[in-house]
Amino acid sequence: MSCPYLIGGNDKPMTTADIIRCTYLIESPYPPEQAAGMVAAAMSAGTFTRVPGETEALKRRFSAAVDSVRALETVELPTLPYREAVSQPHHRAEVVITVPLDVTGTELATLLAVVAGGVMELKELSGIRLVDIELPPAFADAHPGPQFGVAGTRRLTNVHDRPVIASIIKPNVGLLPEQTAAIVRTLAEAGVDFIKDDEKMTNPPYSTVEQRVAAVMAVIHDVAARTGKPVMYAFNVSSDDPEQMVRRHDAVVQAGGTCVMVNINQVGYAGVRYLRQRCSLPIHAHRNGWGMLTRCPLLGLEFNAYNKFWRLVGVDQLHVNGIRNKYWESDDSVVNAVSQCLTPLFAPADRVLPVIGSGMWAGQLPDTYRLTGTADFMYIAGGGIQGHPGGPAAGVESLKQAWEAAVRGLSLDDYAADHPALRQALDKFGKKTATA
Amino acid sequence: MSCPYLIGGNDKPMTTADIIRCTYLIESPYPPEQAAGMVAAAMSAGTFTRVPGETEALKRRFSAAVDSVRALETVELPTLPYREAVSQPHHRAEVVITVPLDVTGTELATLLAVVAGGVMELKELSGIRLVDIELPPAFADAHPGPQFGVAGTRRLTNVHDRPVIASIIKPNVGLLPEQTAAIVRTLAEAGVDFIKDDEKMTNPPYSTVEQRVAAVMAVIHDVAARTGKPVMYAFNVSSDDPEQMVRRHDAVVQAGGTCVMVNINQVGYAGVRYLRQRCSLPIHAHRNGWGMLTRCPLLGLEFNAYNKFWRLVGVDQLHVNGIRNKYWESDDSVVNAVSQCLTPLFAPADRVLPVIGSGMWAGQLPDTYRLTGTADFMYIAGGGIQGHPGGPAAGVESLKQAWEAAVRGLSLDDYAADHPALRQALDKFGKKTATA
Repeated sequence: MSCPYLIGGNDKPMTTADIIRCTYLIESPYPPEQAAGMVAAAMSAGTFTRVPGETEALKRRFSAAVDSVRALETVELPTLPYREAVSQPHHRAEVVITVPLDVTGTELATLLAVVAGGVMELKELSGIRLVDIELPPAFADAHPGPQFGVAGTRRLTNVHDRPVIASIIKPNVGLLPEQTAAIVRTLAEAGVDFIKDDEKMTNPPYSTVEQRVAAVMAVIHDVAARTGKPVMYAFNVSSDDPEQMVRRHDAVVQAGGTCVMVNINQVGYAGVRYLRQRCSLPIHAHRNGWGMLTRCPLLGLEFNAYNKFWRLVGVDQLHVNGIRNKYWESDDSVVNAVSQCLTPLFAPADRVLPVIGSGMWAGQLPDTYRLTGTADFMYIAGGGIQGHPGGPAAGVESLKQAWEAAVRGLSLDDYAADHPALRQALDKFGKKTATA
Repeated sequence: MSCPYLIGGNDKPMTTADIIRCTYLIESPYPPEQAAGMVAAAMSAGTFTRVPGETEALKRRFSAAVDSVRALETVELPTLPYREAVSQPHHRAEVVITVPLDVTGTELATLLAVVAGGVMELKELSGIRLVDIELPPAFADAHPGPQFGVAGTRRLTNVHDRPVIASIIKPNVGLLPEQTAAIVRTLAEAGVDFIKDDEKMTNPPYSTVEQRVAAVMAVIHDVAARTGKPVMYAFNVSSDDPEQMVRRHDAVVQAGGTCVMVNINQVGYAGVRYLRQRCSLPIHAHRNGWGMLTRCPLLGLEFNAYNKFWRLVGVDQLHVNGIRNKYWESDDSVVNAVSQCLTPLFAPADRVLPVIGSGMWAGQLPDTYRLTGTADFMYIAGGGIQGHPGGPAAGVESLKQAWEAAVRGLSLDDYAADHPALRQALDKFGKKTATA
């Protein structure tokens, strides 16, 4: 074009602290090095013609670069549809691309546009997935991070040295506040540490958050007056309106509640961050919808990247599915997710509590412990507690007994010999998902 | 469980206005009717045991139902990985599921949790995609919708009876405000109707929105004082902080600007809605990252559903790619997206302007017109204007000439005979993406 221009800014020296490292899984009919170069180009300054005054140093400051390429298998058919009509095989590769922080800045609204925006649509690739991302410390300075995390949740629930035992309100829609409160009473008296709203239960006219808070917190305080144990209840404050979420959070605080829950994918990064900045309670992050972003193995995000974005925003508890869960996710993937949540990003305080759920009962606890090697998780059992033949208290007991067996390295069957609650759980639920 | 409870709320009669109709493409080893039933069950009240007092009417009020099942092809291998180990073939089907509005309410934070939440992860399905959704009028009442849309954008750009001709600032990162302003001057003097920031350019220290607004708007006012035509510039106000977006929007308003741009997927529904409620300008919605939600044909969302959610939130201009674009998306898909944007959802005012871009130049305009049959779109040409051998003014001219040829049904080659700007464009860009 006729207007010459310079690429701007100071040409300050780069340090490693200024670099974002992105690991992608890619698939393309082009050789992996070439395909990786296309991805890096799409993440860069996008100069289509060399302009006067564009120095190598300036170009480097605003250009992503291919750091490494590891060739993987070759497949005949492309995984994803695309416009290139090619008959040759498709090469898969794991590639690492470095992006100068100057390209993205520290806002997720920009970072994600660079690392998971247009690159996900390139016509030369039949697959692209952001497998992992390493962020420089500037992100820790720019984002609040978890306010409570693992330690804060343990403190507020007063649960130490074992998983936080949790349950959920079912049926998940249609209950009046007093009906929800009646279930809470049963569960609180049964000894659960934590109860959550369903993700589908937000603020319906028949059970607004305010009404639910009043009814549920009265029960929690009443039970706690006798037992000394105030159950942590995650009220689902999800809303399209960030201010509304804050008002609902404030209602929970005023009633003495200790947790709020958000459907993070539907509210989005900016909405959750708005709440986080005004929040004095742990945020229980429900990730429903996450399947859309991750379930195709050659597209989207892996949890290793995803969990980091949400930890920057500042959630405290994050769903990860569970061993032999009722969803599509493999046990390996779940175990990795637990490990991700518990690995410090920038500091130990940014560890978040993994929330294990979806079809859990006592039976998966030994494998959960064996495979993750930690007690730092929340364990949500819906039917596993509420459907226990001895009643909810026996359901909670069966989980605690299964945990004891797991830690001692005993089989559930052996331990159940003199632990009837566990015996009943094995008899009722053991057919489909018992330990292997 | 031991605590009996009722499914609550008034048992008011349902009308068709209270129903959400979801069309899914599914794939499963189970027979389509059975698989559809599993999806409906996952979207429903989720009662795991029949409870006393649960009437059929109450159950219906809070239960999704399979409305129709149309069997499609059978495939040997599952499209998506899942836990069920089955050797039988996988059946694909298009199924319609109706959901009572009482289950979802009108908030997207809840609706999406129901229609695109846990259902996307069911282990019994090897594919599930929300193809379309029909929403009852209650959603129109609960959401702001577009403030400007097609008509408002035409009014503010003063472009009628032809597409809005647009360009983008390149390089997309690294420019100082005065360098951006210099490109704007060139493009404004060349006669473009609209210019946008790149999605990667938000608020870097070397070019904050405030600095960019000052530099760019001074140029736009200066050129307009001579030409009478103030170019619409979409300042990228995307941020993780909704209040920050509003402040940046306010800076645009104060400087006399006429558009703001948002990376909608990265900001999220609640953040964009927060801006919309405080916005007095058209919102240019950049959908980068959308590929992650749609590119796998058996997962996620189709544009038919996606565009409706964002129109409820109230964006005014929405990206759709273009004919023979540089991304993966097929022309058929692009043409459908244009049509979706221009089809009223609840009223003509909620039509949004489709933004056609990614590798556009004069060459795709005839097919764009032939296939979409409309002049109601924005047409973004970056290199097609700025890389035109005759300069940007000739680039703009070549687009207008191509449009004239398209409307008159003439071939570009014929029309170029006495239209040199078009002739030069065909000579330079015609090899790769000319009309078929």
